[in-house]
Amino acid sequence: MPKTEITAEPGSTLVTITRDFDAPRDLVFRAFTEPGLLVQWLGPRGLSTVVERYDVRDGGRWRYVQSSPDGGSHAFHGVFHGDPAPEAIVQTFEYEGAPGHVKLDTVTLTARDGKTRVRTVAAFTCVEDRDAMIAAGMEWGTREGDERLAELLAKLQAG
Amino acid sequence: MPKTEITAEPGSTLVTITRDFDAPRDLVFRAFTEPGLLVQWLGPRGLSTVVERYDVRDGGRWRYVQSSPDGGSHAFHGVFHGDPAPEAIVQTFEYEGAPGHVKLDTVTLTARDGKTRVRTVAAFTCVEDRDAMIAAGMEWGTREGDERLAELLAKLQAG
Repeated sequence: MPKTEITAEPGSTLVTITRDFDAPRDLVFRAFTEPGLLVQWLGPRGLSTVVERYDVRDGGRWRYVQSSPDGGSHAFHGVFHGDPAPEAIVQTFEYEGAPGHVKLDTVTLTARDGKTRVRTVAAFTCVEDRDAMIAAGMEWGTREGDERLAELLAKLQAG
Repeated sequence: MPKTEITAEPGSTLVTITRDFDAPRDLVFRAFTEPGLLVQWLGPRGLSTVVERYDVRDGGRWRYVQSSPDGGSHAFHGVFHGDPAPEAIVQTFEYEGAPGHVKLDTVTLTARDGKTRVRTVAAFTCVEDRDAMIAAGMEWGTREGDERLAELLAKLQAG
């Protein structure tokens, strides 16, 4: 199975994440934009995600809450820039536990021989914010979320 | 008169802009959020700015067009993340002449002995985008816009 490549150069404010998924681009795009699919793969296993709002359009706001079995919960929100499309899903992202630390995520989906390459560029406004999010488990959450997404895409294509 | 400090470290994806203005914070905030004031200072002299939309709220969209005397015009648009406040105006920004190259701007206004320090962090998603915007005249437009803002703030306080 292909693995998730995560790049975070020292001193940079970017994190770049790339992974190929064995599914057509339209299906991957649906998994990113339909809340009913999103909650099935977003983030690490063991957390349950509730999407409170997911307004997939230019200026549309989104918010979701992730809860762990021990009762802890973490909320996130942002805004879409431009109408989301497979060519680019651009959105701001803020963890409500660290208000004011906003990043800009750009996800591009590229079709490759029936597979889809998903590339995410997360742009932070300072190195400290980026490193804090990495320290908080961004890499772990991303890798496990990508594993779950691959499983979901396989299930959707089998079903 | 205080000058605008612009920092753009080689290889970074950030541009940081700082300047002190001799005006109270609330007035500076109005100059950033009221279209009727914004058009009087934004960008270099000689361009006229028409604000088509400026929806100052979380998820609100904005768009303006700047025209030069020779008839050329350039349009820009973005989305506010969070409700704009003097503590932080966070917004995406895209020049429509280079679609898909989005940056995230954070403006913070800090009161200092009756003056206001304006600090802007522009976060790009790659070094090439940042350097292209610098090459396109970002620094010149910023410095001249800041001069015009200082003049406008003086006029508003005298009037």
